[in-house]
Amino acid sequence: MQQSLNDTVALLARTPASLNALLRDLPDAWTRGNEGDSTWSPFEIVGHLIHGERADWIPRVKMILESGETQTFEPFDREGLTREIQGKTLSQLLDEFARVRSANLDDLRALSLTPEDLVRRGRHPAFGAVTLSQLLATWVAHDLTHLHQISRVMAHQYRDAVGPWTVYLGVLQCAVHSS
Amino acid sequence: MQQSLNDTVALLARTPASLNALLRDLPDAWTRGNEGDSTWSPFEIVGHLIHGERADWIPRVKMILESGETQTFEPFDREGLTREIQGKTLSQLLDEFARVRSANLDDLRALSLTPEDLVRRGRHPAFGAVTLSQLLATWVAHDLTHLHQISRVMAHQYRDAVGPWTVYLGVLQCAVHSS
Repeated sequence: MQQSLNDTVALLARTPASLNALLRDLPDAWTRGNEGDSTWSPFEIVGHLIHGERADWIPRVKMILESGETQTFEPFDREGLTREIQGKTLSQLLDEFARVRSANLDDLRALSLTPEDLVRRGRHPAFGAVTLSQLLATWVAHDLTHLHQISRVMAHQYRDAVGPWTVYLGVLQCAVHSS
Repeated sequence: MQQSLNDTVALLARTPASLNALLRDLPDAWTRGNEGDSTWSPFEIVGHLIHGERADWIPRVKMILESGETQTFEPFDREGLTREIQGKTLSQLLDEFARVRSANLDDLRALSLTPEDLVRRGRHPAFGAVTLSQLLATWVAHDLTHLHQISRVMAHQYRDAVGPWTVYLGVLQCAVHSS
C-alpha cells in the first residue's frame, strides 16, 4: 500500500474520537495503570500524543517544505508529555488532543500538498534523508503504535485475572514495549 | 489488579463506540487490508467480535451458573465470523456489534452477580476448571487483544511507506499474530 494522503488524513482524523470513546470516564484502574517501572499509562500516552502534535509532526512538515535537507529536525522529546499532563485530568487531555489534532489537520489541508511535495526530503537527526511522504505515513503509524500500546497496557492490568486463558490472548503475548 | 465487575463492565461497554469512531467510513484500504494469507482484516475482526457475543461469553456465563463443572463449554469457533460478515457492510457490523454487546451487558447486569458467584467454576474444553471471574476478565482481554490486532493490521498497510522510521514504531515490531 502506497502512502495516500486521503487515507492518511482519514485515519489521523479518527484517532482522538476513538481514544475518547475508549478512555473518557473509564475507572482509573484502567487509565492510570502502567506496565511497571518507567512505562506509560494510557493517561501519559495521551499526553505524549498531544506533545507530538505541538512539537513534531506539523513543525517537521513545514521544515521540509521550507528548508529541505538543509535543516535537521529537532529530536523527538519523549519526556515532553510531562508538561502536557501536569495538573490535567484525562478528560482535559482528551479534549486537548482532539483540538490540536483538528487544528493540525486544518494546517495540513491548507498546504494543498502535491505529489511533487510528497517526495521532497528533510533531514532526520538519526536517519539522514527522509521524505515528506514517509513523515506523514509515520504520523499515522505512530497513532497506531500508541493505540496498540494502550490496548496492551490495559490488558496487562488483567494479566493474572484471566487465569489459564492468558495463552490464547495475543495482547498478553506481545513483547514490544513502546515508549 | 483483581477482577472488578465494575471495571470489567466499564471497559466492555466502551469497545463498540471506540471501534465505531475508529473504523466507520474509513477507506477500505484500512478496513479490508490484512496481514497476508489467512489473517484477518479489521472488517473480519468485527465479525469475530459479534460471533463471540452470540456464541461465547454470555452462554458460558450462564452455563457456569446453571451447570457448574458438569458441562463443558462449546469450543470457540474461529470460523464463526464467516456467517456474521456475509453480505454485510462494515457499518452494519459496527451497528450489530453495538447492539449485541449492549444486550449482553444488560443480561450480565440482570444476573446481579455476587462475589460468591464469581468464584464458581465451569469446565473449559482445553483448560479444565476455570472460574466465572476468569471468564469475565477474559471477555475484556479478548476485546483488547482485537483492538491491539486491529491497530497492528492497519499499521502493516504502511509498513513500507514509513521508510526508516519502522525501527521506532513498536506496532511494526509486534510479532504476535492473534487469530
